[in-house]
Amino acid sequence: MEWTHKIRVRYAECDRMGFVHHSVYALYFEEARTEILRQAGITYKEMEDEGIIMPVRSMSMTFKKAGKYDDLLTIHVRIEGAVEVRAHFHYDVYNQNEELICTGYTEMFFVNKDSMRPLKLPEKYKKHMQ
Amino acid sequence: MEWTHKIRVRYAECDRMGFVHHSVYALYFEEARTEILRQAGITYKEMEDEGIIMPVRSMSMTFKKAGKYDDLLTIHVRIEGAVEVRAHFHYDVYNQNEELICTGYTEMFFVNKDSMRPLKLPEKYKKHMQ
Amino acid sequence: MEWTHKIRVRYAECDRMGFVHHSVYALYFEEARTEILRQAGITYKEMEDEGIIMPVRSMSMTFKKAGKYDDLLTIHVRIEGAVEVRAHFHYDVYNQNEELICTGYTEMFFVNKDSMRPLKLPEKYKKHMQ
Amino acid sequence: MEWTHKIRVRYAECDRMGFVHHSVYALYFEEARTEILRQAGITYKEMEDEGIIMPVRSMSMTFKKAGKYDDLLTIHVRIEGAVEVRAHFHYDVYNQNEELICTGYTEMFFVNKDSMRPLKLPEKYKKHMQ
Repeated sequence: MEWTHKIRVRYAECDRMGFVHHSVYALYFEEARTEILRQAGITYKEMEDEGIIMPVRSMSMTFKKAGKYDDLLTIHVRIEGAVEVRAHFHYDVYNQNEELICTGYTEMFFVNKDSMRPLKLPEKYKKHMQ
Repeated sequence: MEWTHKIRVRYAECDRMGFVHHSVYALYFEEARTEILRQAGITYKEMEDEGIIMPVRSMSMTFKKAGKYDDLLTIHVRIEGAVEVRAHFHYDVYNQNEELICTGYTEMFFVNKDSMRPLKLPEKYKKHMQ
Repeated sequence: MEWTHKIRVRYAECDRMGFVHHSVYALYFEEARTEILRQAGITYKEMEDEGIIMPVRSMSMTFKKAGKYDDLLTIHVRIEGAVEVRAHFHYDVYNQNEELICTGYTEMFFVNKDSMRPLKLPEKYKKHMQ
Repeated sequence: MEWTHKIRVRYAECDRMGFVHHSVYALYFEEARTEILRQAGITYKEMEDEGIIMPVRSMSMTFKKAGKYDDLLTIHVRIEGAVEVRAHFHYDVYNQNEELICTGYTEMFFVNKDSMRPLKLPEKYKKHMQ
Protein backbone atom coordinates (compact mmCIF):
# COMPACT_ATOMS: atom_id res chain seq x y z
CA MET A 1 0.00 0.00 0.00
CA GLU A 2 1.10 3.52 -0.67
CA TRP A 3 -0.32 6.83 0.44
CA THR A 4 0.45 10.41 -0.55
CA HIS A 5 0.46 13.74 1.26
CA LYS A 6 1.08 17.25 -0.07
CA ILE A 7 3.23 19.90 1.63
CA ARG A 8 3.93 23.49 0.55
CA VAL A 9 7.56 24.56 1.16
CA ARG A 10 7.78 27.41 3.69
CA TYR A 11 10.04 30.44 3.26
CA ALA A 12 12.01 29.75 6.43
CA GLU A 13 12.69 26.18 5.30
CA CYS A 14 14.94 27.37 2.47
CA ASP A 15 18.56 28.32 2.98
CA ARG A 16 20.70 30.99 1.36
CA MET A 17 21.25 28.75 -1.70
CA GLY A 18 17.45 29.08 -2.10
CA PHE A 19 17.04 25.32 -1.54
CA VAL A 20 15.00 23.45 1.05
CA HIS A 21 17.54 22.76 3.79
CA HIS A 22 18.28 19.03 4.02
CA SER A 23 17.32 18.92 7.72
CA VAL A 24 13.76 19.91 6.79
CA TYR A 25 13.00 16.68 4.93
CA ALA A 26 12.86 14.87 8.30
CA LEU A 27 9.99 17.23 9.21
CA TYR A 28 8.26 16.54 5.90
CA PHE A 29 8.65 12.78 6.41
CA GLU A 30 7.18 13.10 9.89
CA GLU A 31 4.21 15.17 8.75
CA ALA A 32 3.57 12.77 5.85
CA ARG A 33 3.89 9.72 8.13
CA THR A 34 1.40 11.22 10.59
CA GLU A 35 -1.09 12.10 7.88
CA ILE A 36 -0.98 8.72 6.13
CA LEU A 37 -1.44 6.99 9.50
CA ARG A 38 -4.47 9.26 10.00
CA GLN A 39 -5.78 8.20 6.57
CA ALA A 40 -5.22 4.58 7.65
CA GLY A 41 -7.20 5.11 10.86
CA ILE A 42 -4.47 5.85 13.43
CA THR A 43 -4.09 9.20 15.17
CA TYR A 44 -0.51 9.21 16.34
CA LYS A 45 -1.34 11.69 19.11
CA GLU A 46 -3.88 9.25 20.57
CA MET A 47 -1.37 6.40 20.34
CA GLU A 48 1.11 8.52 22.27
CA ASP A 49 -1.55 9.58 24.79
CA GLU A 50 -2.23 5.87 25.34
CA GLY A 51 1.42 5.35 26.27
CA ILE A 52 3.10 4.19 23.05
CA ILE A 53 5.82 6.35 21.55
CA MET A 54 7.54 5.71 18.24
CA PRO A 55 11.12 7.08 18.20
CA VAL A 56 13.31 6.96 15.12
CA ARG A 57 16.11 4.35 15.31
CA SER A 58 17.70 5.25 11.98
CA MET A 59 17.07 7.54 9.06
CA SER A 60 18.59 8.05 5.65
CA MET A 61 17.89 10.26 2.67
CA THR A 62 19.26 10.86 -0.80
CA PHE A 63 18.81 14.13 -2.65
CA LYS A 64 18.23 14.02 -6.41
CA LYS A 65 17.30 17.63 -7.05
CA ALA A 66 16.82 20.77 -4.96
CA GLY A 67 13.45 21.54 -3.40
CA LYS A 68 12.62 25.22 -3.68
CA TYR A 69 10.57 27.88 -1.92
CA ASP A 70 6.82 27.63 -2.60
CA ASP A 71 7.15 24.21 -4.25
CA LEU A 72 4.08 22.05 -3.70
CA LEU A 73 5.58 18.70 -2.82
CA THR A 74 3.87 15.32 -3.00
CA ILE A 75 5.24 12.74 -0.59
CA HIS A 76 4.60 9.06 -1.26
CA VAL A 77 4.87 6.89 1.84
CA ARG A 78 5.13 3.10 2.02
CA ILE A 79 5.41 0.85 5.06
CA GLU A 80 7.84 -1.93 4.14
CA GLY A 81 7.81 -5.41 5.66
CA ALA A 82 6.01 -6.60 8.76
CA VAL A 83 5.23 -4.25 11.65
CA GLU A 84 6.11 -5.89 14.98
CA VAL A 85 8.58 -4.21 17.29
CA ARG A 86 9.65 -1.95 14.42
CA ALA A 87 8.15 -0.27 11.39
CA HIS A 88 10.04 0.72 8.25
CA PHE A 89 8.74 3.73 6.35
CA HIS A 90 9.94 4.69 2.89
CA TYR A 91 9.37 8.14 1.36
CA ASP A 92 9.56 9.55 -2.18
CA VAL A 93 9.24 13.31 -2.55
CA TYR A 94 8.14 14.81 -5.86
CA ASN A 95 7.80 18.48 -6.79
CA GLN A 96 4.92 20.00 -8.80
CA ASN A 97 6.73 19.13 -12.05
CA GLU A 98 6.63 15.45 -11.06
CA GLU A 99 10.39 15.37 -10.61
CA LEU A 100 11.67 13.07 -7.88
CA ILE A 101 13.70 15.30 -5.56
CA CYS A 102 14.36 13.13 -2.51
CA THR A 103 13.99 9.56 -1.33
CA GLY A 104 14.22 8.59 2.31
CA TYR A 105 13.79 5.94 4.88
CA THR A 106 13.05 5.87 8.61
CA GLU A 107 13.16 2.88 10.91
CA MET A 108 10.88 3.42 13.90
CA PHE A 109 10.46 1.29 16.98
CA PHE A 110 7.67 1.17 19.56
CA VAL A 111 8.33 2.03 23.19
CA ASN A 112 6.23 2.03 26.33
CA LYS A 113 6.29 5.68 27.39
CA ASP A 114 6.36 4.89 31.12
CA SER A 115 8.89 2.04 31.26
CA MET A 116 10.80 3.29 28.19
CA ARG A 117 11.07 -0.36 27.10
CA PRO A 118 10.43 -1.61 23.56
CA LEU A 119 7.12 -3.32 22.88
CA LYS A 120 5.28 -5.07 20.07
CA LEU A 121 2.74 -2.76 18.48
CA PRO A 122 -0.72 -3.82 19.75
CA GLU A 123 -3.00 -5.48 17.20
CA LYS A 124 -5.50 -2.57 17.22
CA TYR A 125 -2.84 -0.33 15.65
CA LYS A 126 -1.01 -2.97 13.62
CA LYS A 127 -4.02 -3.95 11.54
CA HIS A 128 -4.24 -0.37 10.23
CA MET A 129 -0.58 -0.31 9.22
CA GLN A 130 -0.79 -3.31 6.92
CA MET B 1 22.81 44.10 35.76
CA GLU B 2 23.57 43.02 32.25
CA TRP B 3 25.09 39.83 30.91
CA THR B 4 26.29 38.85 27.43
CA HIS B 5 26.36 35.61 25.45
CA LYS B 6 27.83 34.88 22.02
CA ILE B 7 26.14 32.82 19.27
CA ARG B 8 27.45 31.90 15.83
CA VAL B 9 24.75 32.04 13.10
CA ARG B 10 24.08 28.61 11.58
CA TYR B 11 23.66 28.02 7.85
CA ALA B 12 20.14 26.65 8.20
CA GLU B 13 19.08 29.72 10.19
CA CYS B 14 19.43 31.95 7.11
CA ASP B 15 16.75 32.27 4.48
CA ARG B 16 16.99 32.71 0.73
CA MET B 17 17.57 36.46 1.18
CA GLY B 18 20.75 35.34 2.98
CA PHE B 19 19.49 36.84 6.25
CA VAL B 20 18.90 35.23 9.63
CA HIS B 21 15.19 34.39 9.54
CA HIS B 22 13.24 36.55 12.00
CA SER B 23 11.81 33.47 13.77
CA VAL B 24 15.33 32.44 14.78
CA TYR B 25 15.88 35.40 17.11
CA ALA B 26 13.43 33.80 19.57
CA LEU B 27 15.84 30.83 19.72
CA TYR B 28 18.80 33.16 20.23
CA PHE B 29 16.97 35.00 23.02
CA GLU B 30 16.16 31.67 24.67
CA GLU B 31 19.73 30.39 24.47
CA ALA B 32 21.06 33.72 25.77
CA ARG B 33 18.48 33.80 28.60
CA THR B 34 19.42 30.26 29.64
CA GLU B 35 23.14 30.99 29.58
CA ILE B 36 22.93 34.23 31.55
CA LEU B 37 20.75 32.49 34.15
CA ARG B 38 23.48 29.83 34.33
CA GLN B 39 26.08 32.59 34.87
CA ALA B 40 23.83 33.97 37.61
CA GLY B 41 23.63 30.58 39.31
CA ILE B 42 20.36 29.12 37.96
CA THR B 43 20.20 26.06 35.72
CA TYR B 44 16.85 26.37 34.00
CA LYS B 45 16.72 22.61 33.45
CA GLU B 46 16.96 22.02 37.21
CA MET B 47 14.26 24.60 37.87
CA GLU B 48 12.00 22.80 35.40
CA ASP B 49 12.91 19.40 36.90
CA GLU B 50 11.86 20.84 40.29
CA GLY B 51 8.43 21.64 38.86
CA ILE B 52 8.64 25.28 37.79
CA ILE B 53 8.20 26.13 34.14
CA MET B 54 8.59 29.59 32.63
CA PRO B 55 6.41 30.04 29.52
CA VAL B 56 6.50 33.19 27.41
CA ARG B 57 3.43 35.44 27.83
CA SER B 58 4.46 38.00 25.23
CA MET B 59 7.39 38.73 22.97
CA SER B 60 8.39 41.55 20.66
CA MET B 61 11.36 42.32 18.50
CA THR B 62 12.55 45.09 16.19
CA PHE B 63 15.06 44.52 13.41
CA LYS B 64 17.59 47.24 12.68
CA LYS B 65 19.89 45.39 10.29
CA ALA B 66 20.08 41.91 8.80
CA GLY B 67 21.96 39.17 10.63
CA LYS B 68 23.98 37.05 8.23
CA TYR B 69 25.40 33.55 7.92
CA ASP B 70 28.49 32.95 10.07
CA ASP B 71 28.04 36.22 11.98
CA LEU B 72 29.30 35.96 15.53
CA LEU B 73 26.54 37.68 17.49
CA THR B 74 26.80 39.11 20.99
CA ILE B 75 23.53 39.18 22.90
CA HIS B 76 23.16 41.52 25.85
CA VAL B 77 20.43 40.48 28.29
CA ARG B 78 18.86 42.54 31.08
CA ILE B 79 16.15 41.60 33.54
CA GLU B 80 13.94 44.65 33.97
CA GLY B 81 11.92 45.45 37.10
CA ALA B 82 11.08 43.14 39.98
CA VAL B 83 10.79 39.39 39.54
CA GLU B 84 7.68 38.05 41.28
CA VAL B 85 5.05 36.18 39.28
CA ARG B 86 6.66 37.45 36.08
CA ALA B 87 10.08 38.32 34.74
CA HIS B 88 10.81 40.78 31.95
CA PHE B 89 13.88 40.11 29.83
CA HIS B 90 15.31 42.61 27.36
CA TYR B 91 17.77 41.66 24.60
CA ASP B 92 20.13 43.62 22.34
CA VAL B 93 21.85 41.69 19.57
CA TYR B 94 25.08 43.01 18.05
CA ASN B 95 27.10 41.57 15.18
CA GLN B 96 30.91 41.27 15.09
CA ASN B 97 31.15 44.81 13.71
CA GLU B 98 29.43 46.10 16.86
CA GLU B 99 26.34 47.05 14.89
CA LEU B 100 23.02 46.69 16.74
CA ILE B 101 20.93 44.37 14.57
CA CYS B 102 17.96 43.48 16.77
CA THR B 103 16.35 44.46 20.05
CA GLY B 104 13.75 42.32 21.74
CA TYR B 105 11.71 41.71 24.80
CA THR B 106 10.07 38.65 26.40
CA GLU B 107 7.67 38.61 29.33
CA MET B 108 7.84 35.26 31.12
CA PHE B 109 5.66 33.96 33.92
CA PHE B 110 6.23 31.16 36.40
CA VAL B 111 3.93 28.15 36.47
CA ASN B 112 3.68 25.06 38.64
CA LYS B 113 4.24 22.22 36.14
CA ASP B 114 1.78 19.86 37.86
CA SER B 115 -1.13 22.20 38.61
CA MET B 116 -0.37 24.46 35.62
CA ARG B 117 -1.17 27.41 37.91
CA PRO B 118 0.91 30.60 38.12
CA LEU B 119 3.22 30.97 41.12
CA LYS B 120 5.64 33.44 42.66
CA LEU B 121 9.21 32.51 41.89
CA PRO B 122 10.71 30.99 45.08
CA GLU B 123 13.32 33.07 46.88
CA LYS B 124 16.14 30.60 46.09
CA TYR B 125 15.82 31.43 42.41
CA LYS B 126 14.73 35.05 42.73
CA LYS B 127 17.82 36.16 44.58
CA HIS B 128 19.94 35.11 41.58
CA MET B 129 17.83 37.07 39.12
CA GLN B 130 18.29 40.42 40.83
CA MET C 1 -10.98 42.38 4.89
CA GLU C 2 -9.95 39.28 6.72
CA TRP C 3 -8.75 35.91 5.47
CA THR C 4 -8.14 32.61 7.23
CA HIS C 5 -5.70 29.76 6.78
CA LYS C 6 -5.49 26.41 8.57
CA ILE C 7 -2.26 24.79 9.85
CA ARG C 8 -1.80 21.44 11.59
CA VAL C 9 0.78 21.56 14.42
CA ARG C 10 3.81 19.35 13.68
CA TYR C 11 5.40 17.08 16.27
CA ALA C 12 8.79 18.78 16.07
CA GLU C 13 7.17 22.18 16.65
CA CYS C 14 6.27 21.25 20.24
CA ASP C 15 8.72 21.50 23.11
CA ARG C 16 9.20 19.33 26.17
CA MET C 17 6.30 21.09 27.93
CA GLY C 18 4.20 19.65 25.10
CA PHE C 19 3.40 23.15 23.82
CA VAL C 20 3.99 24.75 20.44
CA HIS C 21 7.28 26.57 20.93
CA HIS C 22 6.76 30.34 20.83
CA SER C 23 9.32 30.74 18.01
CA VAL C 24 7.10 28.64 15.73
CA TYR C 25 4.27 31.19 15.59
CA ALA C 26 6.47 33.38 13.37
CA LEU C 27 6.49 30.47 10.89
CA TYR C 28 2.72 30.11 11.14
CA PHE C 29 2.24 33.85 10.60
CA GLU C 30 4.50 33.67 7.54
CA GLU C 31 2.71 30.67 6.04
CA ALA C 32 -0.69 32.31 6.71
CA ARG C 33 0.48 35.64 5.25
CA THR C 34 1.72 33.91 2.10
CA GLU C 35 -1.47 31.93 1.65
CA ILE C 36 -3.83 34.87 2.14
CA LEU C 37 -1.76 36.89 -0.33
CA ARG C 38 -2.19 33.98 -2.74
CA GLN C 39 -5.95 34.06 -2.13
CA ALA C 40 -5.82 37.81 -2.81
CA GLY C 41 -4.00 37.25 -6.11
CA ILE C 42 -0.33 37.74 -5.15
CA THR C 43 2.25 34.96 -5.24
CA TYR C 44 4.97 36.18 -2.91
CA LYS C 45 7.56 34.05 -4.72
CA GLU C 46 6.81 35.85 -7.99
CA MET C 47 7.03 39.21 -6.26
CA GLU C 48 10.44 38.24 -4.92
CA ASP C 49 11.52 36.88 -8.31
CA GLU C 50 10.57 40.28 -9.76
CA GLY C 51 12.97 41.94 -7.34
CA ILE C 52 10.80 43.02 -4.39
CA ILE C 53 11.50 41.52 -0.98
CA MET C 54 9.44 42.10 2.14
CA PRO C 55 11.54 41.82 5.31
CA VAL C 56 10.03 42.09 8.78
CA ARG C 57 10.81 45.38 10.57
CA SER C 58 9.10 44.46 13.83
CA MET C 59 7.03 41.64 15.25
CA SER C 60 5.12 41.07 18.45
CA MET C 61 2.96 38.30 19.82
CA THR C 62 0.92 37.57 22.94
CA PHE C 63 0.11 34.06 24.10
CA LYS C 64 -3.30 33.39 25.65
CA LYS C 65 -3.24 29.63 25.79
CA ALA C 66 -0.86 26.86 24.79
CA GLY C 67 -1.00 25.40 21.29
CA LYS C 68 -0.56 21.63 21.33
CA TYR C 69 0.65 18.80 19.10
CA ASP C 70 -1.79 17.86 16.33
CA ASP C 71 -3.98 20.93 16.96
CA LEU C 72 -5.65 22.15 13.79
CA LEU C 73 -5.15 25.91 14.02
CA THR C 74 -7.09 28.57 12.15
CA ILE C 75 -5.20 31.78 11.56
CA HIS C 76 -7.11 34.96 10.81
CA VAL C 77 -5.05 37.60 9.00
CA ARG C 78 -5.86 41.28 8.51
CA ILE C 79 -3.87 43.98 6.74
CA GLU C 80 -4.24 47.15 8.80
CA GLY C 81 -4.01 50.67 7.40
CA ALA C 82 -2.67 51.77 4.06
CA VAL C 83 -0.01 49.80 2.22
CA GLU C 84 2.69 52.10 0.87
CA VAL C 85 6.30 51.63 1.90
CA ARG C 86 5.11 49.33 4.71
CA ALA C 87 2.36 46.83 5.39
CA HIS C 88 0.99 45.93 8.81
CA PHE C 89 -0.34 42.39 9.25
CA HIS C 90 -2.35 41.31 12.26
CA TYR C 91 -2.89 37.64 13.19
CA ASP C 92 -5.32 35.80 15.49
CA VAL C 93 -4.71 32.09 16.02
CA TYR C 94 -7.54 29.83 17.15
CA ASN C 95 -7.43 26.12 17.97
CA GLN C 96 -10.03 23.53 16.90
CA ASN C 97 -12.09 24.35 20.02
CA GLU C 98 -12.38 27.96 18.83
CA GLU C 99 -10.20 29.19 21.66
CA LEU C 100 -7.98 32.18 20.87
CA ILE C 101 -4.44 31.02 21.65
CA CYS C 102 -2.24 33.74 20.19
CA THR C 103 -2.46 37.20 18.67
CA GLY C 104 0.38 38.75 16.75
CA TYR C 105 1.52 41.55 14.56
CA THR C 106 4.22 41.99 11.92
CA GLU C 107 5.31 45.22 10.28
CA MET C 108 6.83 44.51 6.88
CA PHE C 109 8.55 46.89 4.51
CA PHE C 110 9.27 46.62 0.80
CA VAL C 111 12.82 46.58 -0.49
CA ASN C 112 14.41 46.48 -3.93
CA LYS C 113 16.37 43.22 -3.87
CA ASP C 114 19.25 44.59 -5.98
CA SER C 115 19.77 48.02 -4.42
CA MET C 116 18.52 46.91 -0.99
CA ARG C 117 16.71 50.25 -0.74
CA PRO C 118 13.14 50.68 0.47
CA LEU C 119 10.46 51.23 -2.16
CA LYS C 120 6.74 51.89 -2.45
CA LEU C 121 4.86 48.75 -3.32
CA PRO C 122 3.91 48.97 -7.03
CA GLU C 123 0.21 49.47 -7.79
CA LYS C 124 -0.15 45.99 -9.38
CA TYR C 125 0.50 44.41 -5.99
CA LYS C 126 -1.03 47.10 -3.81
CA LYS C 127 -4.49 46.81 -5.30
CA HIS C 128 -4.64 43.16 -4.21
CA MET C 129 -3.68 43.99 -0.62
CA GLN C 130 -6.55 46.41 -0.04
CA MET D 1 42.35 13.04 11.30
CA GLU D 2 39.52 13.74 13.66
CA TRP D 3 38.24 16.97 15.15
CA THR D 4 35.69 17.69 17.86
CA HIS D 5 33.15 20.44 18.48
CA LYS D 6 30.83 21.01 21.45
CA ILE D 7 27.15 22.02 21.20
CA ARG D 8 24.68 22.74 24.03
CA VAL D 9 21.17 21.37 23.30
CA ARG D 10 18.58 24.18 23.02
CA TYR D 11 15.14 24.02 24.61
CA ALA D 12 13.31 24.35 21.30
CA GLU D 13 15.32 21.47 19.84
CA CYS D 14 13.60 18.96 22.15
CA ASP D 15 10.22 17.47 21.41
CA ARG D 16 7.36 16.52 23.71
CA MET D 17 9.10 13.22 24.58
CA GLY D 18 11.82 15.49 26.02
CA PHE D 19 14.33 14.23 23.44
CA VAL D 20 16.37 16.10 20.86
CA HIS D 21 14.24 15.83 17.73
CA HIS D 22 15.95 13.64 15.14
CA SER D 23 15.80 16.40 12.49
CA VAL D 24 18.07 18.55 14.68
CA TYR D 25 21.12 16.30 14.34
CA ALA D 26 21.49 17.49 10.73
CA LEU D 27 21.93 21.01 12.16
CA TYR D 28 24.47 19.76 14.69
CA PHE D 29 26.40 17.93 11.97
CA GLU D 30 26.41 21.10 9.87
CA GLU D 31 27.61 23.31 12.73
CA ALA D 32 30.30 20.75 13.65
CA ARG D 33 31.39 20.39 10.00
CA THR D 34 31.69 24.17 9.64
CA GLU D 35 33.67 24.54 12.86
CA ILE D 36 36.12 21.74 12.14
CA LEU D 37 36.70 23.17 8.66
CA ARG D 38 37.40 26.49 10.39
CA GLN D 39 39.91 24.72 12.68
CA ALA D 40 41.46 23.20 9.56
CA GLY D 41 41.79 26.64 7.93
CA ILE D 42 38.68 26.85 5.73
CA THR D 43 35.87 29.33 6.32
CA TYR D 44 32.91 27.80 4.54
CA LYS D 45 31.30 31.23 4.13
CA GLU D 46 34.35 32.46 2.20
CA MET D 47 34.31 29.34 0.04
CA GLU D 48 30.67 30.00 -0.78
CA ASP D 49 31.34 33.71 -1.39
CA GLU D 50 34.03 32.59 -3.87
CA GLY D 51 31.42 30.63 -5.78
CA ILE D 52 31.70 27.07 -4.47
CA ILE D 53 28.71 25.55 -2.69
CA MET D 54 28.67 22.15 -1.00
CA PRO D 55 25.16 20.61 -1.04
CA VAL D 56 24.40 17.32 0.67
CA ARG D 57 23.91 14.40 -1.73
CA SER D 58 22.98 11.85 0.94
CA MET D 59 22.76 11.64 4.70
CA SER D 60 22.15 8.90 7.22
CA MET D 61 22.05 8.68 10.98
CA THR D 62 21.53 6.04 13.65
CA PHE D 63 20.28 6.85 17.13
CA LYS D 64 21.71 4.89 20.06
CA LYS D 65 20.30 6.89 22.93
CA ALA D 66 18.19 10.02 23.36
CA GLY D 67 19.82 13.43 23.48
CA LYS D 68 18.20 15.65 26.11
CA TYR D 69 17.63 19.31 26.89
CA ASP D 70 20.73 21.13 28.18
CA ASP D 71 23.02 18.21 27.29
CA LEU D 72 26.51 19.37 26.37
CA LEU D 73 27.27 17.27 23.30
CA THR D 74 30.69 16.56 21.82
CA ILE D 75 30.69 15.84 18.11
CA HIS D 76 33.62 14.00 16.57
CA VAL D 77 34.01 14.59 12.83
CA ARG D 78 36.13 12.64 10.35
CA ILE D 79 36.57 13.16 6.63
CA GLU D 80 36.73 9.70 5.05
CA GLY D 81 38.53 8.89 1.83
CA ALA D 82 39.83 11.27 -0.79
CA VAL D 83 38.24 14.67 -1.39
CA GLU D 84 37.78 15.31 -5.11
CA VAL D 85 34.32 15.98 -6.49
CA ARG D 86 32.84 14.73 -3.24
CA ALA D 87 33.65 14.69 0.46
CA HIS D 88 32.41 12.13 2.97
CA PHE D 89 31.98 13.32 6.54
CA HIS D 90 31.36 10.97 9.44
CA TYR D 91 30.00 12.13 12.83
CA ASP D 92 29.88 10.59 16.31
CA VAL D 93 27.86 12.46 18.94
CA TYR D 94 28.58 11.90 22.63
CA ASN D 95 26.76 13.39 25.63
CA GLN D 96 28.46 14.77 28.78
CA ASN D 97 28.46 11.25 30.28
CA GLU D 98 30.58 10.04 27.36
CA GLU D 99 27.73 7.94 26.02
CA LEU D 100 27.53 7.64 22.24
CA ILE D 101 24.06 8.87 21.32
CA CYS D 102 24.18 9.20 17.53
CA THR D 103 26.37 8.34 14.58
CA GLY D 104 25.88 9.88 11.19
CA TYR D 105 27.23 10.37 7.73
CA THR D 106 26.88 13.04 5.03
CA GLU D 107 28.10 12.86 1.46
CA MET D 108 28.68 16.34 0.10
CA PHE D 109 29.57 17.39 -3.42
CA PHE D 110 31.07 20.60 -4.76
CA VAL D 111 29.14 22.79 -7.16
CA ASN D 112 29.92 26.00 -9.03
CA LYS D 113 27.32 28.44 -7.66
CA ASP D 114 26.84 30.22 -10.99
CA SER D 115 26.70 27.31 -13.42
CA MET D 116 25.28 24.90 -10.82
CA ARG D 117 27.62 22.25 -12.26
CA PRO D 118 29.74 19.89 -10.16
CA LEU D 119 33.42 20.69 -9.82
CA LYS D 120 36.59 19.28 -8.27
CA LEU D 121 37.44 21.07 -5.05
CA PRO D 122 40.36 23.46 -5.80
CA GLU D 123 43.72 22.53 -4.29
CA LYS D 124 43.74 25.55 -1.91
CA TYR D 125 40.76 24.07 -0.06
CA LYS D 126 41.56 20.40 -0.56
CA LYS D 127 44.90 20.53 1.18
CA HIS D 128 43.16 21.68 4.38
CA MET D 129 40.68 18.82 4.29
CA GLN D 130 43.27 16.06 4.27
